This record gives sequence, structure tokens and C-alpha cells, in this order.
Amino acid sequence: MKQYIYADNAATTQLDPKAFEAMIPWLRDEYGNASQPYSFSRKPKKAIAEARAVIAECINADPEEIYFTSGGTESDNWAIKGSAFSDSGHHATITSQIEHHAVLHSCEATERIGYPVAYLPADEEGRILPETLDRYISDRTRLVSVMTANNEIGTIQDIAGLADIAHAHGAMFHTDAVQAVGHIPIDVKALDVDMLSASAHKFNGPRGIGFLYIRKGIKVCPFMDGGGQENKNRAGTENTAAIVGMSIALMNNTQNMRNTSDSIRSLENLLITKLIEEGLVFRRNGANTLPGLISLSFQNSNGEMLLHRMDLKGICVSTGSACNGSSDEISHVLQAIHLPDEYAKGTIRISLGKHNTESEIFKITESLKQILMPK
Amino acid sequence: MKQYIYADNAATTQLDPKAFEAMIPWLRDEYGNASQPYSFSRKPKKAIAEARAVIAECINADPEEIYFTSGGTESDNWAIKGSAFSDSGHHATITSQIEHHAVLHSCEATERIGYPVAYLPADEEGRILPETLDRYISDRTRLVSVMTANNEIGTIQDIAGLADIAHAHGAMFHTDAVQAVGHIPIDVKALDVDMLSASAHKFNGPRGIGFLYIRKGIKVCPFMDGGGQENKNRAGTENTAAIVGMSIALMNNTQNMRNTSDSIRSLENLLITKLIEEGLVFRRNGANTLPGLISLSFQNSNGEMLLHRMDLKGICVSTGSACNGSSDEISHVLQAIHLPDEYAKGTIRISLGKHNTESEIFKITESLKQILMPK
Repeated sequence: MKQYIYADNAATTQLDPKAFEAMIPWLRDEYGNASQPYSFSRKPKKAIAEARAVIAECINADPEEIYFTSGGTESDNWAIKGSAFSDSGHHATITSQIEHHAVLHSCEATERIGYPVAYLPADEEGRILPETLDRYISDRTRLVSVMTANNEIGTIQDIAGLADIAHAHGAMFHTDAVQAVGHIPIDVKALDVDMLSASAHKFNGPRGIGFLYIRKGIKVCPFMDGGGQENKNRAGTENTAAIVGMSIALMNNTQNMRNTSDSIRSLENLLITKLIEEGLVFRRNGANTLPGLISLSFQNSNGEMLLHRMDLKGICVSTGSACNGSSDEISHVLQAIHLPDEYAKGTIRISLGKHNTESEIFKITESLKQILMPK
Repeated sequence: MKQYIYADNAATTQLDPKAFEAMIPWLRDEYGNASQPYSFSRKPKKAIAEARAVIAECINADPEEIYFTSGGTESDNWAIKGSAFSDSGHHATITSQIEHHAVLHSCEATERIGYPVAYLPADEEGRILPETLDRYISDRTRLVSVMTANNEIGTIQDIAGLADIAHAHGAMFHTDAVQAVGHIPIDVKALDVDMLSASAHKFNGPRGIGFLYIRKGIKVCPFMDGGGQENKNRAGTENTAAIVGMSIALMNNTQNMRNTSDSIRSLENLLITKLIEEGLVFRRNGANTLPGLISLSFQNSNGEMLLHRMDLKGICVSTGSACNGSSDEISHVLQAIHLPDEYAKGTIRISLGKHNTESEIFKITESLKQILMPK
């Protein structure tokens, strides 16, 4: 198997080997439907309850506030559409211009059938300032949704400050924390959020599973209607193996967060230092960024070209979000932060994870130099 | 590990060992995000394309008509809500009283925000007669949704006949085939359906994955909004391992369908013959039923009691749908077929699969005799 340098951990991560091992029995032997009342279903039911408790503890929630979904996209769709459709008064949603498309396109879908939405501008570093929200919000606002950290440029928002303003106007607050959970400390009580989205494969868990935290007492319609699973809030046969895998991955990432984060930060600093030493001219986008998420814009260059040239050297990086993987337009995030075109077009995202090494950083910087400063 | 007799294959099935093996590399090593353009993502992208082609062939569709979802519940939600929300004229949906809750509750959700729905009655064997649809349908109907086979009593519907009437009135036709795919031949062209829902774990595939067939040219809104996956129709990072596992399971079940079905039918006949020989008084619900799906109503008995007494003997059966596993009300299906209360209360569903054996059938019938005719 060809060896790659994988530096696209914001797109997806390698499955934690312990999570993988923990999934096997639920895939192979213990196939009982967790919602059935007979003895054969007791073990999966118990495993799911334990996973829920583990996940709740990782974000300082109560277990009954964790609802399993098929991933971050579903969690975001649920938060946005579920709160809109539960509101017969058609009050407004406020979100930001730099949200993931799972939030933005969900908002647009509700708009098309009559639910108003406003889109907050960001500053040049991708921050959604509380004072901006304060200007937009009114007592007609039902929901404010701002992401914990941006997936393209990594900027971590002042979620507690934003939630505070939402609550002062009687609005609910949702945060898409898909890029953040498992990488920076998340405490739903300290952040004072009403809903929070997460996706397992972004924190070394499996694909096809995520969760939505919904604070006790918050009323949102189900998004996935059907059977009575998840306390009648999210229908569909429980995916025991994936739920267990997600809980192990999140527990491991959370327990090692301090060390992992420190070591990723030093790789990140090494990368930036090397690029400067090499004499490359670039801007780093964002501020107060997620560990290892490095959005670089090279003047008068081309992100697509950089990605493909890096690929030829066996290095996986991204031009932005994987969800737009095949598009070469300037992303909505780079547009929202008003990055000048001559930089925006030359943007790549390098996202480091716990498996990256110093020698990989040297290869990445050396490769960028070869591509951008050919002799 | 305790040995159970698993006779609840309509709730979920054991994962095909070949599907399990096929999933491993995609869980462990080949973790590239299938939507990224670099080389590391070529293998998962190719695996997904191959799985799509295999699945399409199994139901006589074209690959680009197969959209991967998180399961049957999502497929049903998408078909119902996606077609409602794509219709600014608020035309009506017609469904039946005996649909799975994934369809019924999705319809109710659209009703609550202003999209009208009618619910067709069934006959006493659970058939939705084309002449019934003919009485309800009008040129104001946008969508007709009737399940291919019922999950509680197994009745297989005249889908081609129903679709014909829908099309004659310019309506689209969706069928929830979650219980049927992988168990009886499904040919979307012969059935002439516009949308068809399926769920992998019902045909020995993994949990958390399914698909919606959408005929070329049919316009429905996305249900899961976000990234550009699935040709911009279903957002969310592709679950490579589950998609591959589903395709292997469906291929194996489809290739062996004739033999499996014959052997399950003979187990089914053996079970019924033995029960009659033992002198038990019961009704079998449904007509033209799925292979191995046996809904039995014992007069003046209690389904919950039967389930728990069978469980004590290590036999897994159901009172109805797993999605209502903890409820002891008479199900909406048994109410819709007007089963007299003294029978309805004593109903269990025995659902046989390809792993069941003759000796297990003897144990099941012997156990039912011991419980219902104590000496």
C-alpha cells in the first residue's frame, strides 16, 4: 500500500484502532435490535446507554441530552429545520455567512418554505463578533446558530458571548461543533448552548454517526420521523457498532486532548516557521484557530494546482472543505472574510492530526517550496 | 455466549460474514474522504461507484438513480418530505394506514406545516386495493406512497397496479420496500415506481446505511442539506465501509434469493403445519406474504406475555415492529385490518431468515405449545 502524508484531518480522520476493535462484536455477533425487549437485545441496549454516558461526560452534558444521528450533517439539519418547523409563528433564524453548508443550505431550505433567515457577516479573521449579533437580533429571533470553529480557516468563536446575547432576546442558541469536538475542550454548560452538533469521523470515530446535544427543556421537532428510538426524538434502528466506536474515539481523544493539542501546536508552529524561513510569501487565514488547522493563502498562486502538485508528492491537503472537494470557486468562507482574490485563489488547508510527525512537516514545507519556488 | 433462536429477522438481520470482511479495509486503512480529489481518495471513490453499480443491478436501476442514505427511515423521510417541500402548490400526498411509522410520521410532519395527506384503508388481509386508490386519487395528488410489503404482517402489495393509477393522474409513486429488498425480486422498471426505499440491515447488511432509488427525471428536494455529495442530492461524508458492506450483502442475498426463499418457505410451512397438528387455535394474518414473515394471533392470549415467555426459552420473536418494541398497544396495522381485539392482543410476529433451521422450528412450535396449552 502506498504511503501518504495525510494532512487533511479536517476532512476526515483515521479511525482510532481501539474504536475499531470495540466495534467488531457489535458488527459480527451481537446483532440484536437494541429496541427489542428480549434478552438478546440487552447487551446492545446496555452498550448504547454506556456510550451515551461516556459522550455526555466528554462535553459535560447529561446522557439524556445526547441524541445519536447519522453524522454532523444530520445534526445540523435537525437543529435548523427542527427548530424552524416547531415554530408556527415563523420567527427568524440568525446564522453566519461562514457556516458549513450543512447549516447554510438547511437555512436556505427553510427559507424556501417561508421561514426567514439572516446571515451574520464575519470580520477579516473569520470572527462573528457578539456586537454584530447584537445588531441583527430582535425579539422575533427564534434561533441563533454559529459554529464553534470554522472548518476552512479554523477560527474559534466566542460561543459563550454569542449565546448570552441570543438568550437575552429569548432565542435558542445552536452551535455546529463538528470541527471542534474531540479537539478542543467543549463544555456545553460553560458555553451555555441549547444545541450542539458533532460528527464522529472528525474525531477518529467511524463514519455515519454523530450526535446532537439538546439541552433539557428545549423543544425542537424531530428531523428523522418514524419509530420511537432516541426517546421518540430520532427514528431509525440504532447503529450499535458505530455508537460504541464513536464513544471510544471521543473518550480517547478527550483524555489525551492536552498532550495531543500541545504536540499538534508545535508541529503547526514548526510548519509556519519553516515556510517563513524558506522565504515563501503567504497569509495565514483565521485567528484563535483550532490546533493543526492551517489555512494558507499564497499570492498569485492556485489552490487546485497546489493540491494536485502536493498529491503527486504523496501529500494529502485540501483547498477547503471536503464537501466542495471538486469545486474550484473561491469558497463562501474566504469571500466572507474579504480575502483579496490574488490570495484567495491560492489557498490550501493543511490540517494536522495526532498521527502527523515532524519529518512529515519537513516534507510538506520542502514540497511547498519546490512547487512555489522552483529553481 | 448464550445461544438464541433468532426468529426476529424482520427487525434486523445478522450481518453477512462476507459483507463484514469487505468492510474492514474501509474502516481501518482506506480512510480517505471519498469526496476529496487526491489519489488517496481514489480507492474509496471507486469502491463507492462499484457498490452503486452492484446495488443498481440488483433492482434493475441505473447507478445514478441510487442515492445512499443512513437507512430506511431516512429514505422514507426523504421521499415524503422531499416531494412535499419541492411542491409550492401544496398538492396532496396519499399513503396507506398500514405504512411503517417512517412514512406515516413523515406524512404527519408535512401535514403540520400545511401539506395535505390522505390515508388509504387496507382490506382484512392488509392489501391496499388499486380500486381504493382509484377512489381517493385526484389531479390534486402529487405523491402516492404505498409499501412493497408490510413489516408486521408481511402482505405484499400490487405495486405495479397502484403505480399505474398514480401515474394516470400525474402523481409520483414511492414505495417503502425496506422489508422486501433482498428477500423478493425487486425490479423498479417492472414495478414502474419513481422512488423506492431500502435499508441494508434488513437484508444482512450493516446498520446506518440504506438507499433511496429516484428515477431519472423525478424532482424531489434534498432531505439532508449540506455538502455536494451524492450528485448534490444527499449531503454528508460518504460512509464507504457501510456502502460496500450493503452492496455485498444485497448481491449475495439477490444471487441466492430463489434458494433461500424456497428453504424459508418450507420452514414457514413446517411451522404452520406443526402448530395446527398441536391443536393450537390461531389466525395467520396477511396474505401473499413475504417469505418467513409469520404474524400469528392467538385468541384470548397476550402478545407481550408470549414474547417474554418465548424469551425465557431463548427464542427471539416480536409483538410487531421493533420500532414499537416497548409498547403493548394494538398496532396501527392490526387496527387497520380490523383484527378482532381478542385476536389482536394475542399477536406475535415470527420472522425467519436464511440462518434458521428445521430443528429451530420444532423448538419454536414446541415452546408455543408449552406456553399456550400447559398440561
